[in-house]
Amino acid sequence: MRIADIPTPALLLDLDRLETNLVQMAERAQHLGVRLRPHIKTHKCIEVASRQRALGAAGITVSTLSEARAFVEAGFTDLTWAFPLIPGRLDEVMDLARRARPAVLIDGPEAVAALSAAGTALRVFLKVDCGYHRAGVDPEGELVLTLARRLTDADHLEFGGILTHAGHSYHCRGHEALLEVARQERDVMLACAARLRTAGIPTPTVSIGSTPTMSVIDDLVGIDEIRPGNYAFHDLSQVVFGAASVAQCALTVLSSVVSSQTGAGRSIVDAGALALSKDSGPTDLGHATMGAVFAHYASSRLEPEIHLTALSQEHGHLNAELPVGRRLRILPNHSCLTAAQFDSYYVLQGERVVDRWRVHRARGG
Amino acid sequence: MRIADIPTPALLLDLDRLETNLVQMAERAQHLGVRLRPHIKTHKCIEVASRQRALGAAGITVSTLSEARAFVEAGFTDLTWAFPLIPGRLDEVMDLARRARPAVLIDGPEAVAALSAAGTALRVFLKVDCGYHRAGVDPEGELVLTLARRLTDADHLEFGGILTHAGHSYHCRGHEALLEVARQERDVMLACAARLRTAGIPTPTVSIGSTPTMSVIDDLVGIDEIRPGNYAFHDLSQVVFGAASVAQCALTVLSSVVSSQTGAGRSIVDAGALALSKDSGPTDLGHATMGAVFAHYASSRLEPEIHLTALSQEHGHLNAELPVGRRLRILPNHSCLTAAQFDSYYVLQGERVVDRWRVHRARGG
Repeated sequence: MRIADIPTPALLLDLDRLETNLVQMAERAQHLGVRLRPHIKTHKCIEVASRQRALGAAGITVSTLSEARAFVEAGFTDLTWAFPLIPGRLDEVMDLARRARPAVLIDGPEAVAALSAAGTALRVFLKVDCGYHRAGVDPEGELVLTLARRLTDADHLEFGGILTHAGHSYHCRGHEALLEVARQERDVMLACAARLRTAGIPTPTVSIGSTPTMSVIDDLVGIDEIRPGNYAFHDLSQVVFGAASVAQCALTVLSSVVSSQTGAGRSIVDAGALALSKDSGPTDLGHATMGAVFAHYASSRLEPEIHLTALSQEHGHLNAELPVGRRLRILPNHSCLTAAQFDSYYVLQGERVVDRWRVHRARGG
Repeated sequence: MRIADIPTPALLLDLDRLETNLVQMAERAQHLGVRLRPHIKTHKCIEVASRQRALGAAGITVSTLSEARAFVEAGFTDLTWAFPLIPGRLDEVMDLARRARPAVLIDGPEAVAALSAAGTALRVFLKVDCGYHRAGVDPEGELVLTLARRLTDADHLEFGGILTHAGHSYHCRGHEALLEVARQERDVMLACAARLRTAGIPTPTVSIGSTPTMSVIDDLVGIDEIRPGNYAFHDLSQVVFGAASVAQCALTVLSSVVSSQTGAGRSIVDAGALALSKDSGPTDLGHATMGAVFAHYASSRLEPEIHLTALSQEHGHLNAELPVGRRLRILPNHSCLTAAQFDSYYVLQGERVVDRWRVHRARGG
């Protein structure tokens, strides 16, 4: 099968670009002297994670329990659920702990109390807010010491260390701006680890990472582990941030023009919100497209003037009049959300389909 | 099982509200003297479509071929694929035509040529642009006559009639504004049908419909069929348009607070973009929330001050500091895209789970 034979819309994964991305980040981690625990929420794919493991990844990071179960089933037993523990799903974590070595994440006393009450042996990370202000405790407050001490003192719990995610790098453009956030992410965590250790709390692992910050950081002395995910595929947003080039983007959506009226100056493609997601990318950085378009479906060059202006459920609105039947490859704003809309990847080498890989996703996560 | 026992995030469907919505639209269609062919892309659910059929629905409308296959498999043989024919998937349509009576949609000469070449007996609708300017031919141009004639003259094709969707109703607020679009949708199609008939082209069916326009229209003389879909569930956007009340909204997402820092004035819930989609609703009408929140998970009253300000992949950002473990029911901006993120519905009567229904979705559509 070749790219010309694939029914649209379809999720395409360029194998050579994927391998290059995986090798580059593995080499960066080795060069920087840190373990790489890739976030598999980007690809939700056993075959991609197996390649990451073969390149030296020290376990994986997941964002949902359904991801955790799928990867444990496939033999990935060393995993961190990098999402604040959902109190009502602790029984599922305990079930996983009977089959694998999951680490969980907490950032408040309620979760510590729930874990203590459950009595299951678990490794627990303390989530720290390095400036993103989503989840995580204040690294300079008292709570970080209190919670770390409770985790250390709990009989059956193992304090894994501290963990953060510099999600605010997704609002930066350019190497210098990204480097500033990357250094903040690192320095906040080094200072926090020092506070814990000064207070007599052993802190085994300091874990950081986002694709933009890990793509630019130059020194990670004192950091143990990084958890980027998006780097496997990259996407149009990473190009806007300056964290990747178009030539590094491995994931695209193959689409067909299905409607085009002479003189209208626009057309409709069969990739809408249920193919590309409704992620509008970094609009705060002036980004104003729902997806870029390659000049030809086997090209690496983006059309400078053609892009998607809007998405409805199954319709993509193109700002150019192209003939019905024309096939386009679309570079999505957000590869993680795009991959999650599909059941499988068409894995390509050049124009040839060399494999189909499953996307493991379930129930709203 | 009760609502308090459901693991979060979860898709909740209120059975009584669903039934009320289905009955109301069935009665509207009967009162207005039109056939109701509900669009099942909203729910993708056999059990909901079965209820619509029991209430008199004349067939169903689908937006993807995977929906078509799932519903044919379940015994729904009279269906319209209301999406411009994807030329590369004509073989799948022909396969369906061996097992059911699918009608397809075209709005250009390329698709007519492809259908003529295929030689399969098919009912074909001509998509007309009633003012939305997405897909569809100009109702006042020559092309509409040319294409209708070609469909009528093709040996093995059956010209089903003309079809439109007033998607521009999704940019209107209030009864009067919606009524204006609804009358335009109707009147454009009546005029177009008259042109075709005057030109000697038999035009069996005039098919229109969106939930906002069909919720307000008062007279459909001359129209044969309506195809609303969202009305089964409604959502926050329909409330903003003025097409539904909060009390009519049948679909919600059950979510848990998972992170909350004292004094921060915000918290994180476990429903993000992969639960709610990234649909931001009618921002052009001043809408500025990613989801509304009910006062209590068994309440019908929205919290006036609490809502979701942003969504990342699995995190929902709440503008209020609620305790970790608190369960919330979220009213999504767009029920169709929300349902498509889940594998199944928890069907509720009051606080009791009375059933689980599957969401039939596959590959980017």
